[in-house]
Amino acid sequence: MNPNVAVVGTGCVKFGERLDTSYEALATAAVDEALGDAGCAREQIEAAWVGTYLPGAHGGKSGTALADPLRLYGIPISRVENYCATGTDAFRHAALAIQAGAYDVALVVGVEKMKDRPGRGLPLEGRHPIVGRGSSAPGQFALAATRYMHERKIGREVLAAVAVKNHENGAKNPLAHLQKAVTADAVLKAPMIAWPFGLYDCCPTTDGAAAAVLCRADRAREFSDKPVAVRGTGLAVTNGRPFLDPTFDYLGFPATAAAAAQAYTQAGIKDPARDIDFAEVHDCFTMTEILNYEDLGFAVRGEGWRLIMEGRTALGGDKPVNPSGGLKSFGHPIGASGVRMIYEVTRQIQRRGEARQVAKSRIGLAHNVGGPGAVSCVVVLSE
Amino acid sequence: MNPNVAVVGTGCVKFGERLDTSYEALATAAVDEALGDAGCAREQIEAAWVGTYLPGAHGGKSGTALADPLRLYGIPISRVENYCATGTDAFRHAALAIQAGAYDVALVVGVEKMKDRPGRGLPLEGRHPIVGRGSSAPGQFALAATRYMHERKIGREVLAAVAVKNHENGAKNPLAHLQKAVTADAVLKAPMIAWPFGLYDCCPTTDGAAAAVLCRADRAREFSDKPVAVRGTGLAVTNGRPFLDPTFDYLGFPATAAAAAQAYTQAGIKDPARDIDFAEVHDCFTMTEILNYEDLGFAVRGEGWRLIMEGRTALGGDKPVNPSGGLKSFGHPIGASGVRMIYEVTRQIQRRGEARQVAKSRIGLAHNVGGPGAVSCVVVLSE
Repeated sequence: MNPNVAVVGTGCVKFGERLDTSYEALATAAVDEALGDAGCAREQIEAAWVGTYLPGAHGGKSGTALADPLRLYGIPISRVENYCATGTDAFRHAALAIQAGAYDVALVVGVEKMKDRPGRGLPLEGRHPIVGRGSSAPGQFALAATRYMHERKIGREVLAAVAVKNHENGAKNPLAHLQKAVTADAVLKAPMIAWPFGLYDCCPTTDGAAAAVLCRADRAREFSDKPVAVRGTGLAVTNGRPFLDPTFDYLGFPATAAAAAQAYTQAGIKDPARDIDFAEVHDCFTMTEILNYEDLGFAVRGEGWRLIMEGRTALGGDKPVNPSGGLKSFGHPIGASGVRMIYEVTRQIQRRGEARQVAKSRIGLAHNVGGPGAVSCVVVLSE
Repeated sequence: MNPNVAVVGTGCVKFGERLDTSYEALATAAVDEALGDAGCAREQIEAAWVGTYLPGAHGGKSGTALADPLRLYGIPISRVENYCATGTDAFRHAALAIQAGAYDVALVVGVEKMKDRPGRGLPLEGRHPIVGRGSSAPGQFALAATRYMHERKIGREVLAAVAVKNHENGAKNPLAHLQKAVTADAVLKAPMIAWPFGLYDCCPTTDGAAAAVLCRADRAREFSDKPVAVRGTGLAVTNGRPFLDPTFDYLGFPATAAAAAQAYTQAGIKDPARDIDFAEVHDCFTMTEILNYEDLGFAVRGEGWRLIMEGRTALGGDKPVNPSGGLKSFGHPIGASGVRMIYEVTRQIQRRGEARQVAKSRIGLAHNVGGPGAVSCVVVLSE
């Protein structure tokens, strides 16, 4: 994808336990902010994509659920669902459709309401017919953590450093769910969820919504004096249950590497360790962020843990990762997270990162991985 | 959309009560047939879209569910869900992505397994918080039927004529769920479901899958000596609950008219009554087909019922509608139906309609409407 598509407006609500409001109201608030940011009238939106993971009461959760609250009538609205990569994949579809010449101006909204659902929307115990009890998300990702810790000869203090960094960033972010710095000692002494993950190694369950307005690059200046270019998007699905795959080495997710390769090819990125200035990556668990460093090419295999221990991915480091606070402290309303990352990367590139502004923000990356581990979506944005 | 995208292979399983097989096996069989039809190796597929309405056990039903059975690894697979328009919207996304230049060869598969789910996948009683009991699909569409019958001064025999036609067509179709002709008398005397709809006015609940291989038009001859051009696609969402909208006149679905207008503009269709040779339309209930005639511009407002009574939409008429047998006798596995229509329209244009081949098959249309009534997708294909 040549940079024919631009992001010209973004919006994001306060993430958290939003028992005070509804799915529709969260989506509407994010969209209103994005439209306002772009100076875009509702009537200028030609097509929309909704990223939502959880189904509605009858099984569907289509665009029809949002046409009324968003007052978008007579235009295409599609729902995309792709596990934890739902938000970035919805964004990818909006970008593809503009690239196709089908629409000049499109909207993407990621939204999820998880706190007021039975089971908070996710299986609290593993219900996989083969693995059975214990195959919860923390339980599965913990298997990767123990393997990595064994192979690389590191301890829980490396994982804790990810939590400390992302909580520190999130404490600077008024929209984050958990705006609270934590010490390494607190992380290491927190109640155990699934060894080696304590409470602070896991992202919280969260309600939230984020939105972005995209348009043809040659019309971007109608909406923004700081448009952000969509340089590349990639999506890859590997085998549906990596944790059941006998060839899986537990040391990284091939879906992320494949999605990144697609996005880097489109964006002309030869060396992501050098060329990507900063990133928002899928830190559903502390270990996942370290695996992401390697899968995304920020570090060579086996060396990802050094990036966090050397402070290179801190806000003041040479390659800040999750300046927003990440899933870890921003929260992870599944369909919303990817679009929330697009919000953060866009605002950083526009130098609107406020207390969490990174130094170099010319080229940024957003990354989701889900399934668990089976699907990944990567988006590269630039000035 | 200029005809830059072609359909080069299609597949469709036997629809019906497929308790003998699985969701994954249905999808795989349809895809295998489509790949074989295109002479396309699995490795040539660059991206895929899955149209499925019903969620999986944990809420998602992403491409990850199909990567393993389809042996498609490392490429993008996205799930699109848009109520009863899921299948045609999945097809639309594959076409948009090829149009964008992102992929040369793509796959779309629509699949749904409804017969072995609690409630057969759909609410058997209305559960809408406002309307409550009675707002089932038959109950809601029946409100449109009674209004139309009152306004146009017609009786149930007009609805019965749609059932007779579509069952007659379906009886010629070895893949249809209900391969059985019915008489008008039998339709009128069948058990009442929601007046004026008797049993034969309603499509059955069905398991099924269909698939299509799409590619850049300039590569179509690599795969098929009878490629079919994608001339236009349209998708529109209106207010989320037309049946609760005080401005809804119950005499047609604005979403269909809006989606058709988009597709006709792209396809350069000025007069659909003249220019569309035949169509597969969303006859979830007999009345819906008549409303579709008017919403799609095959007849002027208030005159759609004449098309069926004058035999014009019969297999031997001047504008055959639902030569496949339609949802009425082919069945309606929600996410599969739209792709099944693409299969039928493609095969008719390729003159492979067998016992149900229509006389003029240069330009054909596929149409879904769902939500109920809130979303519609229209696809125009041609030689």
